[in-house]
Amino acid sequence: MVDTVLFEFLHTEMVAELWAHDPGPGGQKMSLSVLEGMGFRVGQALGERLPREMLAFREELDVLKFLCKDLWVAVFQKQMDSLRTNHQGTYVLQDNSFPLLLPMASGLQYLEEAPKFLAFTCGLLRGALCTLGIESVVTASVAALPVCKFQVVIPKS
Amino acid sequence: MVDTVLFEFLHTEMVAELWAHDPGPGGQKMSLSVLEGMGFRVGQALGERLPREMLAFREELDVLKFLCKDLWVAVFQKQMDSLRTNHQGTYVLQDNSFPLLLPMASGLQYLEEAPKFLAFTCGLLRGALCTLGIESVVTASVAALPVCKFQVVIPKS
Repeated sequence: MVDTVLFEFLHTEMVAELWAHDPGPGGQKMSLSVLEGMGFRVGQALGERLPREMLAFREELDVLKFLCKDLWVAVFQKQMDSLRTNHQGTYVLQDNSFPLLLPMASGLQYLEEAPKFLAFTCGLLRGALCTLGIESVVTASVAALPVCKFQVVIPKS
Repeated sequence: MVDTVLFEFLHTEMVAELWAHDPGPGGQKMSLSVLEGMGFRVGQALGERLPREMLAFREELDVLKFLCKDLWVAVFQKQMDSLRTNHQGTYVLQDNSFPLLLPMASGLQYLEEAPKFLAFTCGLLRGALCTLGIESVVTASVAALPVCKFQVVIPKS
């Protein structure tokens, strides 16, 4: 009933609270970093709750597929719409109707507001990957709301 | 799998973030107020998602029973353990193992840390009641972790 939207409401409130005092450009960067950090720790914690067998993934690509299916369904009640890779450590995960962007009007007019609704989720992906033994850099971009692309770059060690 | 704990992880992170900078007594009061306000707005939003028939409760007591059963299950995957009233507008809702207090050790030694884990939920109850047309004052008290009592006072108009 209401449980599926609890996370989304809480996320909205977190963003609103962090931007409540209109902190200016420097403060906004700090707020994005705070959100990303919270997402990272929640992603780590979620990763630690995963069944043991999921921690035995052999291939990077299997881990990414797992994020696109199981993790996304657990958090957003839907799967990611597509996953592409260059087979050199870069993955693009595309969600055609990203739930945290849906409350905003579609189109271009609110594009500049989008980053604050993406930072937490970038952290969430990075945190879950970290628990699964993969260091990564995760960024997000929006060309037209509510379509969203998350880019995961895994540096070769 | 992981969805039932997402809210709890996110709540933990919110509390940690608000207390990260050790703001002193005045700042702590402000942080409690911020958490209570976030809970209030999430409670309001949850209330607005309830089926229409639930908005037609005739009796105050029915509304409180609804919070103890349906709302609590939706948010915490368990029912409240008891509900008592003096039939004059004061209700005591007791949860014998309040999920947001469970990560803390049982007993007395961390009692002073408890209020920051209760403020959001006090707001949540107040917000849901507000959407259901009832103004209230909600406070929480802990005598021994993880048992928690929420007191709802509804002023007679």
